Amino acid sequence: MTQYWNRLQDRMERLRANKLFETFVIAVIIASALLIGAKTYEESSRFDRWINWLDLGVTLFFLFEIVVRMAAEKRFLDFFKKGWNVFDFVIVVASLVPINDSEMVLIARLLRVFRVLRLVSLIPELRILLAALVKSIPRMGYVALLMFIIFYIYAAIGSFMFSGVDPVLWGNITIAMLTLFRVATFEDWTDVMYDTMEVYPYSWIFYLTFIFLTAFVFLNMMIGIVLDVMQKESAAEQLESGEGEAAEVHWMRERMVLMSEQLDRIERQLGQQDRDSR
Amino acid sequence: MTQYWNRLQDRMERLRANKLFETFVIAVIIASALLIGAKTYEESSRFDRWINWLDLGVTLFFLFEIVVRMAAEKRFLDFFKKGWNVFDFVIVVASLVPINDSEMVLIARLLRVFRVLRLVSLIPELRILLAALVKSIPRMGYVALLMFIIFYIYAAIGSFMFSGVDPVLWGNITIAMLTLFRVATFEDWTDVMYDTMEVYPYSWIFYLTFIFLTAFVFLNMMIGIVLDVMQKESAAEQLESGEGEAAEVHWMRERMVLMSEQLDRIERQLGQQDRDSR
Amino acid sequence: MTQYWNRLQDRMERLRANKLFETFVIAVIIASALLIGAKTYEESSRFDRWINWLDLGVTLFFLFEIVVRMAAEKRFLDFFKKGWNVFDFVIVVASLVPINDSEMVLIARLLRVFRVLRLVSLIPELRILLAALVKSIPRMGYVALLMFIIFYIYAAIGSFMFSGVDPVLWGNITIAMLTLFRVATFEDWTDVMYDTMEVYPYSWIFYLTFIFLTAFVFLNMMIGIVLDVMQKESAAEQLESGEGEAAEVHWMRERMVLMSEQLDRIERQLGQQDRDSR
Amino acid sequence: MTQYWNRLQDRMERLRANKLFETFVIAVIIASALLIGAKTYEESSRFDRWINWLDLGVTLFFLFEIVVRMAAEKRFLDFFKKGWNVFDFVIVVASLVPINDSEMVLIARLLRVFRVLRLVSLIPELRILLAALVKSIPRMGYVALLMFIIFYIYAAIGSFMFSGVDPVLWGNITIAMLTLFRVATFEDWTDVMYDTMEVYPYSWIFYLTFIFLTAFVFLNMMIGIVLDVMQKESAAEQLESGEGEAAEVHWMRERMVLMSEQLDRIERQLGQQDRDSR
Repeated sequence: MTQYWNRLQDRMERLRANKLFETFVIAVIIASALLIGAKTYEESSRFDRWINWLDLGVTLFFLFEIVVRMAAEKRFLDFFKKGWNVFDFVIVVASLVPINDSEMVLIARLLRVFRVLRLVSLIPELRILLAALVKSIPRMGYVALLMFIIFYIYAAIGSFMFSGVDPVLWGNITIAMLTLFRVATFEDWTDVMYDTMEVYPYSWIFYLTFIFLTAFVFLNMMIGIVLDVMQKESAAEQLESGEGEAAEVHWMRERMVLMSEQLDRIERQLGQQDRDSR
Repeated sequence: MTQYWNRLQDRMERLRANKLFETFVIAVIIASALLIGAKTYEESSRFDRWINWLDLGVTLFFLFEIVVRMAAEKRFLDFFKKGWNVFDFVIVVASLVPINDSEMVLIARLLRVFRVLRLVSLIPELRILLAALVKSIPRMGYVALLMFIIFYIYAAIGSFMFSGVDPVLWGNITIAMLTLFRVATFEDWTDVMYDTMEVYPYSWIFYLTFIFLTAFVFLNMMIGIVLDVMQKESAAEQLESGEGEAAEVHWMRERMVLMSEQLDRIERQLGQQDRDSR
Repeated sequence: MTQYWNRLQDRMERLRANKLFETFVIAVIIASALLIGAKTYEESSRFDRWINWLDLGVTLFFLFEIVVRMAAEKRFLDFFKKGWNVFDFVIVVASLVPINDSEMVLIARLLRVFRVLRLVSLIPELRILLAALVKSIPRMGYVALLMFIIFYIYAAIGSFMFSGVDPVLWGNITIAMLTLFRVATFEDWTDVMYDTMEVYPYSWIFYLTFIFLTAFVFLNMMIGIVLDVMQKESAAEQLESGEGEAAEVHWMRERMVLMSEQLDRIERQLGQQDRDSR
Repeated sequence: MTQYWNRLQDRMERLRANKLFETFVIAVIIASALLIGAKTYEESSRFDRWINWLDLGVTLFFLFEIVVRMAAEKRFLDFFKKGWNVFDFVIVVASLVPINDSEMVLIARLLRVFRVLRLVSLIPELRILLAALVKSIPRMGYVALLMFIIFYIYAAIGSFMFSGVDPVLWGNITIAMLTLFRVATFEDWTDVMYDTMEVYPYSWIFYLTFIFLTAFVFLNMMIGIVLDVMQKESAAEQLESGEGEAAEVHWMRERMVLMSEQLDRIERQLGQQDRDSR
């Protein structure tokens, strides 16, 4: 029995590592993405039955693929140690929820949309890209906090002063923050300003200081962080590949230690000669 | 008496350094920020009494906290030597102004809004962020002056030529500068242009040269300054931490001086041998 | 016969290399560009005959020029080995299509527009610029793919949820992606948002997360890639020119190898002296 | 006579170098700028006489100042060797044109506006800033040409295809280029697109490719050029100041040459010892 299981597992492992199988999985994911897109067209209602059958096929194939990957693991629970595996598992299991229930249709559909994200978990280059992105998030935490404080203060001032002028834009602090985000993206911000300038002629000071502050903080920080990350990465890359300036400097440093030791030996030898000759 | 005072001061110092106390202060600041936000909602009028009591509580706690921090100083006036302490003191004292007077309500409310800024003075990471931002301001002084000159000249030309076309946008030099800022943010700038093009068909030259000039100056300078600051900071960081290329180069330079001295000694020794053997 | 042909070929080669001839070709291309521009003016109909004659002249001259360049090649087929030659050939041959046929007029006109692109193939600096641009495309492939996945998922969600609210903007996944591109360029994106917020009051979460995601990915990647390319290029440039930091480091590394060998020799010599003196 | 003239010239030179005189000149320029600004206000008509007298005063003072600077030169024509002097001279002479003639009023006023630019010629920091900006223009020449070619081709295609749809936006190639610039700044570009999409449903391809092309070329090049300039400047700065990584590397390179020579001498000496001992 165990032997039979081992043989099956071996076969699963070979299947998982198979390049053709991987390509086929990617093809099915793309097909499932196209299926989702097709459903948004009105004319698709004629092919409803076909689409549903295809959808079921995709769901079953995904289930099969995840079972293969689980079975290929030496220990069953090792499968859940990788974040991407958990991600795939949740996506696949969630889309098993039946979509007959009319109220659940929207949720079930949305869950199917997230299947497209499996592309990211399958293509290594995308996984590296995403890892780099995620790594840069914590650095931005405090900048985001500072930004939020600026937004909060201006939103509070704005909703205290302008809520009488235009409650749709400045009614409460949440709406005011949304309005300020709109101002920060320069989206028809003058319309917002001209409105309040009719009651408070000097309210342009409010908008201009806000724009300067956010643009200033944003520019200063964003570029700084990006630059920082990139410099470190490219230096690390050079060190690894053994090419480029940073690698050469590192090589020189190590070589210099050897040269120093050699000089020490030479000096000692000369000193010995002196003592010998006396 | 003095002994009693000293013992009290010790206790205050321990309280100020207490991690739990600090967290509690941050919690109260956030609570006070939420309170300010809550007041902007219309439905909040029902809870007006509660909010006022809470507000009073926050005010009193802030007063208590600042007294603790003052008492913890060895000399009373040392407290005011740190900029952030003065900032906190002003915020706290200003919010002691009674808000019964109906005319002062708006001002008192605004002062309470600035309490949120105390978060910046309490969280060290935010203080560092802000210090870096403030440090980059003087570098931008002359670029800002150049920008202002460009805006002033274009605003003067604009209000001389277009004030007859649209006095709302080009009435005087202040309004014209606001309009030009709008053009610089690309906010419905074509509406402004099409208006004046009906009278002066070639006025697009005015807008295009303005956009090119400001975008050019802005891009060239902003990125330059940011890059400059970042390069210096990352180099300084590497030197401090003793890692990275800049640190290795620095280490090599120092080691090279030692090696040179060693070579000098070897040469002198060899010269000595020569003279001895003759 | 062959001799006559060889002499002709020599003359063609000299003509092609002639600086004056090259300048004349550029002048004709610019003239043809101006001709295309002139045709877009309504008043041009009066000069229709002149423009057509000039157009024919330009076409014939281009034909002549490409024949000269073909004849200048040692082997006829070598001409097609350079991508830019193939490009020029297609442009010239395509504009030989007669434009009498009324249905073909538009296509023939568009083909004539692409003649302006011959400027790029003729001016070396532009060719280098374009080559650098093309070289940076593959690096952006995976970022573009990630962007597309983000757009696709949001478009799918958007068209599932909002197609009932505004079918013009969210009717199907293609239209929804166009609408999302509009949102990503901040073009009247609040109008789109306010529309859907009337039905789904929390739909601002959809827009804000989308804007943050795309802006974040875009900024992080774009600047990263550009920086990366530039750093490598400037380092390579320094190495070539033998100036700058990277070149100095490279020089030092090579010199250090020589110095190490010299130290080895010295050490061996000293060891020899020791053995000799015993 | 000549002695008297020499004494006057000396006095002029001292006056020109006088810090107080310089500050006063800057003050007068700022005053003249404020005067120009004041004239744009409608209420200024009441003070018309005062403003005119002040204007005359400023004009005469500028004349006096430029005569002082001319007289301070050893040779009269040396004055015109500096570009900034010529600039100042033109500004001052041009504003001597009488403004009585009603038709010339606008031109005379505009000339007075350019007096503000004298600030740039007087403040050294601004002069350096401007010199750096001007230095970066030639590098952008070919990118600008490439951009112009892209705009020209798209404008030609646009005005061929869409001039029937909206002649105000696509009437001829000049207008079409202006419209495309509008699209490139994302200013209500969807309005332009939706208009043409009603007739040509696939015209969004035209806009999207245009936006991607221009944004791509712009980003790639602009940042590249700025980075390039900044890197070179900061490296040159480090070399001059003798601090920073580039300076340390340079120092090491020079020291290494000395060390190599020393090693050569040591090796030669050891070889000599060998020959001596035999």
